Amino acid sequence: MRPNVAVLGAGSWGTTLASMCARHGPTTIWALEDEVAREINARHTNSLYLQGFELTPALRATRRVEEATEGAKVVVLAVPSPYFRAVLGQAAPFVPKTVPVVSVAKGLEPETLLRMTEVVAQVLPDNPRAALSGPNLAREIIAGYAAGAVVACHDAEVARHLQGVFNSGLYRVYTTHDVVGVEAAGALKNVIAVAAGMADGVGVGDNTRALIITRGLAELTRLGVAMGGEPSTFAGLAGLGDLLATCISPLSRNRHVGEQLGKGRKLEDIVGEMRMVPEGIHTCRLVLEIARRHGVETPIAREIDRVVHGEVTPLEAYRRLVRPLPGPESQ
Amino acid sequence: MRPNVAVLGAGSWGTTLASMCARHGPTTIWALEDEVAREINARHTNSLYLQGFELTPALRATRRVEEATEGAKVVVLAVPSPYFRAVLGQAAPFVPKTVPVVSVAKGLEPETLLRMTEVVAQVLPDNPRAALSGPNLAREIIAGYAAGAVVACHDAEVARHLQGVFNSGLYRVYTTHDVVGVEAAGALKNVIAVAAGMADGVGVGDNTRALIITRGLAELTRLGVAMGGEPSTFAGLAGLGDLLATCISPLSRNRHVGEQLGKGRKLEDIVGEMRMVPEGIHTCRLVLEIARRHGVETPIAREIDRVVHGEVTPLEAYRRLVRPLPGPESQ
Repeated sequence: MRPNVAVLGAGSWGTTLASMCARHGPTTIWALEDEVAREINARHTNSLYLQGFELTPALRATRRVEEATEGAKVVVLAVPSPYFRAVLGQAAPFVPKTVPVVSVAKGLEPETLLRMTEVVAQVLPDNPRAALSGPNLAREIIAGYAAGAVVACHDAEVARHLQGVFNSGLYRVYTTHDVVGVEAAGALKNVIAVAAGMADGVGVGDNTRALIITRGLAELTRLGVAMGGEPSTFAGLAGLGDLLATCISPLSRNRHVGEQLGKGRKLEDIVGEMRMVPEGIHTCRLVLEIARRHGVETPIAREIDRVVHGEVTPLEAYRRLVRPLPGPESQ
Repeated sequence: MRPNVAVLGAGSWGTTLASMCARHGPTTIWALEDEVAREINARHTNSLYLQGFELTPALRATRRVEEATEGAKVVVLAVPSPYFRAVLGQAAPFVPKTVPVVSVAKGLEPETLLRMTEVVAQVLPDNPRAALSGPNLAREIIAGYAAGAVVACHDAEVARHLQGVFNSGLYRVYTTHDVVGVEAAGALKNVIAVAAGMADGVGVGDNTRALIITRGLAELTRLGVAMGGEPSTFAGLAGLGDLLATCISPLSRNRHVGEQLGKGRKLEDIVGEMRMVPEGIHTCRLVLEIARRHGVETPIAREIDRVVHGEVTPLEAYRRLVRPLPGPESQ
């Protein structure tokens, strides 16, 4: 039997992760919406965020945070980055100091530009903190397909412990100590995914799509290393792996928004149809601000930000991105 | 007016490149097949290798090598790696020492395991030699889509000269001195593309596809660096860029073979239907031999080789590739 796990957040990924954990030990998921919690308990489904999949029957759901965290030996935060601090703050009084807090959110806190484990450090300074990331499209994992991920923690022992908590069947978890790299990659890749989706929408072809993802990885690595991450992390599962899954899969929300923008639709209309807001949209401006502070050039993020704010059309943005740059190739 | 260019080889990429060069200066293409040469001259099309596209009317074709190379100031070799030496040998007597020889072939010479510019060095030791590579799906480029490439040459001045020869409209060429890296990446990526296609054919999902491409880039980088290439090349257009285009595009032959193998079809039947043999199939064993010599692990190439030789099924190969590897993520 594995330790009790509390998953806070019942979107597609939180639900998938909780359902996997519930196969191996007591697991409780906190849902914002009462009807989601009820449905998970009564019917073992989450039709709002994960339609068409059966969840592990042993998974318990609640909309009371204190109930979810009661007795938990691991707490997982699976809420979008803008709501991360608020939900963690609700849970904090019920989480003992020894319990590791694991972020699976991919983004930065809007006002502070903090990474999610930095928010954990402010709210629960004594708890071990970690980030779980990788090419993890929820619908494929809940369907039982193979996938890999990394759990990042400064403490190698905690990392190994969490590896044992999250490993499940064909979902294989590796460890790393590079928390900054994993979180930076997770936040920045969504912006590149919007750009790759836009390439599809505009219809610029696979050569250009490959070029944008390649330059996107270089941009992400440049900024992530400036933030303190290690170069090899960006070439791994949490970097290139997650970037690729997000850039090529029809299941990716960020890619979808980019594609629809590329087809000439308005951002409000696209987002209005979606249940979950894609992080890439609001992350874009945050990335630009961080890049400015570190003195790093991020041309893709800059162009996507202009498109998102209606300053240029997607086609104009693409023309600028593939504009001739004479001389040697630079990373 | 740009210098006279001779392109030896009238497959899809040779024809595309020649058609682009012919827009800017006198260009002659050598075709193996008489009917291809006649059709290019008479109708400005190449229906055998590039059906549906109009070529630059000024492009001249011939099936006599000495006619193609006459007066040429740049010679481009666009034939598959197994025939590279033979065609170059035919041309050699007609190529003055000052004329740069540019390889656009992606592969290694079967018996010798030499890179294409190493073959040039043996056949024409005094000529400048270079390699042109990148995410360059011929059909997209002939259709006028944007794309990037790198031209690699030890001599920076020759590289800049060739950049000026190949730059054309939205086809943007960058320079690099890392000839080994560019050629190693070009040869090895086809093997990974077969693996990525196989992922599609088996139906393992986008998470696993992203994982395979990520590990594939690591494998390719590891081996390419052991061969003498520079790490940054593998993260650039000739490395990740070309790998991605080959792994994700329906236009890629290597990806197609992998996909069909993944669906359970026999290699002979798949290749029998194709006009151009995908390099990834015969490159696989060469890659394994080079890896053995350098003492580098190449698990993806090893599994693909087993599938190609009918030793394991694609599904078994995939199970082995995603098998649990406890511990830290390694590049």
